[in-house]
Amino acid sequence: MEGTPDLYPSRVNGKETLSPRLDPVVYGGAQPEVPHSLSQRDLDTFDRQGFLVMNDYMPEMVAPLKREITRLRDDMAGYEELYTEPDSDELRTIFKPFAYSDLIDRFSRDPRILNKVRQILGSDAYLMQSRVNIKPAFKGKSFPWHSDFETWHVEDGMPRMRAVTVWLMLTDNTEHNGPLYVIPGSHHHYASCEGNTGEKNYQQSLKKQMLGVPKPETMEALLDDKGIASVTGQAGTLVFHDCNLMHGSPDNIANDPRSILMFVYNSVENKPVTPFSGLPLRPHYLSNPDQRPLQAVESLWPLAS
Amino acid sequence: MEGTPDLYPSRVNGKETLSPRLDPVVYGGAQPEVPHSLSQRDLDTFDRQGFLVMNDYMPEMVAPLKREITRLRDDMAGYEELYTEPDSDELRTIFKPFAYSDLIDRFSRDPRILNKVRQILGSDAYLMQSRVNIKPAFKGKSFPWHSDFETWHVEDGMPRMRAVTVWLMLTDNTEHNGPLYVIPGSHHHYASCEGNTGEKNYQQSLKKQMLGVPKPETMEALLDDKGIASVTGQAGTLVFHDCNLMHGSPDNIANDPRSILMFVYNSVENKPVTPFSGLPLRPHYLSNPDQRPLQAVESLWPLAS
Repeated sequence: MEGTPDLYPSRVNGKETLSPRLDPVVYGGAQPEVPHSLSQRDLDTFDRQGFLVMNDYMPEMVAPLKREITRLRDDMAGYEELYTEPDSDELRTIFKPFAYSDLIDRFSRDPRILNKVRQILGSDAYLMQSRVNIKPAFKGKSFPWHSDFETWHVEDGMPRMRAVTVWLMLTDNTEHNGPLYVIPGSHHHYASCEGNTGEKNYQQSLKKQMLGVPKPETMEALLDDKGIASVTGQAGTLVFHDCNLMHGSPDNIANDPRSILMFVYNSVENKPVTPFSGLPLRPHYLSNPDQRPLQAVESLWPLAS
Repeated sequence: MEGTPDLYPSRVNGKETLSPRLDPVVYGGAQPEVPHSLSQRDLDTFDRQGFLVMNDYMPEMVAPLKREITRLRDDMAGYEELYTEPDSDELRTIFKPFAYSDLIDRFSRDPRILNKVRQILGSDAYLMQSRVNIKPAFKGKSFPWHSDFETWHVEDGMPRMRAVTVWLMLTDNTEHNGPLYVIPGSHHHYASCEGNTGEKNYQQSLKKQMLGVPKPETMEALLDDKGIASVTGQAGTLVFHDCNLMHGSPDNIANDPRSILMFVYNSVENKPVTPFSGLPLRPHYLSNPDQRPLQAVESLWPLAS
């Protein structure tokens, strides 16, 4: 796959630009015969907005997943997959939890999620990345505007826009605890950023992203007639968002943490090539070398109970 | 006034505590004969919540005040009354704008404001402090939870809770541009904080407040069954908030600035004594030495037009 053309150049010491997306958002269509699949109306919403919120969709998963994550915090102490807040020792992220938890591994293959993912991507999918994000009460820091795809393209070599992020709210996500802000419709545009990626940029960017953050002028142009929307809902709400949706989040000064469990599904027809930055591959917990198609599981409950 | 008892000790190297408020919130009552006065219902809301939002109350003032503030930014360049953002040179605050602007001086004595202030305080009032706060788009920083009264008591010697803050929204204040977060009902409690005030603490605290910020445990106890409310509204909305209302704000990652013009009115029966910190007085632009009762003006328009 050497020599794959770079259709979405960024951080190549050029000027910042906005250009049209060259790929579909939804690769499949309605499949009424497939259980747990999305309606054409939901697919159209996802196509137009770049995200879909399924309120209170999996409330029964919250308690067992939270118990499992509490266990992982202890069992994984000292692991490289754990990241803390920029200004404190407070746990911010657990990467690759599926590798250390049968429940989370099986949950990532729940047909209620996986059948929708396959439908959006129009193909089988593999789990490119997974994480638990915890935004602590009072001191959770903000995250600037960015498109995940921009990073995955430049730093991981994801060639096209054919990946979807799915996340479950583990606590209520409210207007006040640093919710995800998104720009509906922004995924139709590609923001090519200034700068040049340094080696091991992820060690910095996972704490505080500096590269791949569009400048105010670019954000103004992108926002144009679009607004900002907060993605809020009660614990158990499931969210799908396109890989190129522009998003960010303010800090959390409320007294309740904002926690989510996130999976990034990439199409098996969109496997990474040599990173367009020319730099070495990022660690396995950021771009999973296991790219076998996921198989749906029938039931979680023997493990979740 | 030496020897005034300290009814609200804080930063005296003790443990953090919550104690009941010892003063009324509303000192006066309904005065149907006074133009622009508040109804008993509004007064009751203010008493219970600690704040009152008058949506779209003074839309005609927005444009002339913004023009005036643009002028002040230039005319006051280099003045000590100007404060910038902690991490940049962007203008954050203009203190004492009434001293440099006839329009703002007269606006602070608009009977639509002043008659309500007198009613709440049950007395004449003087202008203890005034400022323009600008929270820039994309990079406006958050402000942690605090009660203004705690600072004014410790650092300025304000003896009792008998002051009210009034502010006009100069831009739309939305859920997304770093709005004021308040805890309705928190003004009925006094949070005594840990720490000890250093000399010229204001030089730090006006950029990033460290002292007078209750610890998470105290905030949990204070929040108890209360929630967090965002104070939002369109430009021209007027807000009254009690001096002891616990408030803070998240950072502004949106593309529109949040700007307000703020006045702090203190009762002439509540004039400052020697600061309870024992430290020297803060500058004139933080606690105004001119404590003569304000006289309402009849009309702003010769100046505002």
